[in-house]
Amino acid sequence: MSWWCCDQSRTRPPTPDKPSTPRRHRPRGDPRCRRRIVQHTRFRDHDDATDRRRVGIRQASLYNHFATKNDILVTLLHDTVTPTVEFDESLDDAEPADVRLCALTWFDAAQLCAGRWNLGALYLLPEIRTEPFDTFRLGRLRLARRYHDLAVEVLGGGTLAGGDPRADLPFRLVESVIDIRADRQMDGQTIDAQLPETLATAALTVLGRTDVGIVDRARALLVGVSVDSLSAVRARE
Amino acid sequence: MSWWCCDQSRTRPPTPDKPSTPRRHRPRGDPRCRRRIVQHTRFRDHDDATDRRRVGIRQASLYNHFATKNDILVTLLHDTVTPTVEFDESLDDAEPADVRLCALTWFDAAQLCAGRWNLGALYLLPEIRTEPFDTFRLGRLRLARRYHDLAVEVLGGGTLAGGDPRADLPFRLVESVIDIRADRQMDGQTIDAQLPETLATAALTVLGRTDVGIVDRARALLVGVSVDSLSAVRARE
Repeated sequence: MSWWCCDQSRTRPPTPDKPSTPRRHRPRGDPRCRRRIVQHTRFRDHDDATDRRRVGIRQASLYNHFATKNDILVTLLHDTVTPTVEFDESLDDAEPADVRLCALTWFDAAQLCAGRWNLGALYLLPEIRTEPFDTFRLGRLRLARRYHDLAVEVLGGGTLAGGDPRADLPFRLVESVIDIRADRQMDGQTIDAQLPETLATAALTVLGRTDVGIVDRARALLVGVSVDSLSAVRARE
Repeated sequence: MSWWCCDQSRTRPPTPDKPSTPRRHRPRGDPRCRRRIVQHTRFRDHDDATDRRRVGIRQASLYNHFATKNDILVTLLHDTVTPTVEFDESLDDAEPADVRLCALTWFDAAQLCAGRWNLGALYLLPEIRTEPFDTFRLGRLRLARRYHDLAVEVLGGGTLAGGDPRADLPFRLVESVIDIRADRQMDGQTIDAQLPETLATAALTVLGRTDVGIVDRARALLVGVSVDSLSAVRARE
């Protein structure tokens, strides 16, 4: 069975007639090659030749750039987490926790919505529990912990808030994008452009915060964020 | 790759020394056989002989009861939805929508928490999009629609509420149990016994309802519900 189970509904048409510069002489693991392959390949179990042509690699194998198929999957999965971690690190600690949590959820939901494929659908694969995916799993858990810590701050901090089961909900709400995309794809429907804002607001509401001012302030933190995925969502609004 | 990717953390130890009555003469599709197999087999790709011994089928194949492996998967998946549909049908329509929504979420989260394996982890498998799973997919979508309709009622009904993106959130919250279980299992942690109540409360909160009285009334609807899964969750509280 293929581990490929992602949304291809927004895949751009292949352009086999316009291959870019061959990359065959680049060393294995060249970041430019890896990114190009990750972004443009459909990663089916077979027909690698078509995939290579599509990304402009005419003779070299995908495996000049990735040692194993797991390496490709690891790279794909990291791309579902890394942009959000970087956005989180860019947030000013002086901002209140509720504003940062709202902005983080908004950004994360937007990038999960707008990614070309619904890569989060791969999170539950049995392979992900194995050693090659340790770094990815730890990265995702650190992100979950970040959501949790911000939620605990929103709930007032301290031991009582630390044990509040609601503190886990913002992370779960943001990852619901994955199921929503999967279901929408099956129904042939598109995602509601409002979804990131809806989830960002809900992430506060479940913690008891309903102040519209927090959402407005979080929205301001997203202005000017030059992330393709976020722009893609905005473009559909 | 195996499609087996479920939580076995609470699996009871196998009892190969005490096989129950052989079922080999029962016709294919006998509901008692199918249920026994579904409940007790671990469904790995191989070692069917061990599986058969475990469920007390000493000579007959699993395929005396299921035509294909997909049939087994369909049965497993139906078991993640059917108890909740039956519970929903048992609810009195005279109860307010918010009480019914809260009770439905509570029950559903409890049964998703307490099932022996985390079968919802199979929802995103590519196979689920194919024809043999049409009935299951429709059943799950009908359940999602039920959540949506109740949420729209809670939001005031009418066209405006019908288009409110928050109406989709209760169903997403309840299915977050699947990811929570998967993550907890990976960390070697158990699920918080409060989780069903937390999610049932959150399903109202995201719709703007924070009245504790609704939660109390929903709790009362769950008293006496003789579902093993719900009892299992309660036993851990």
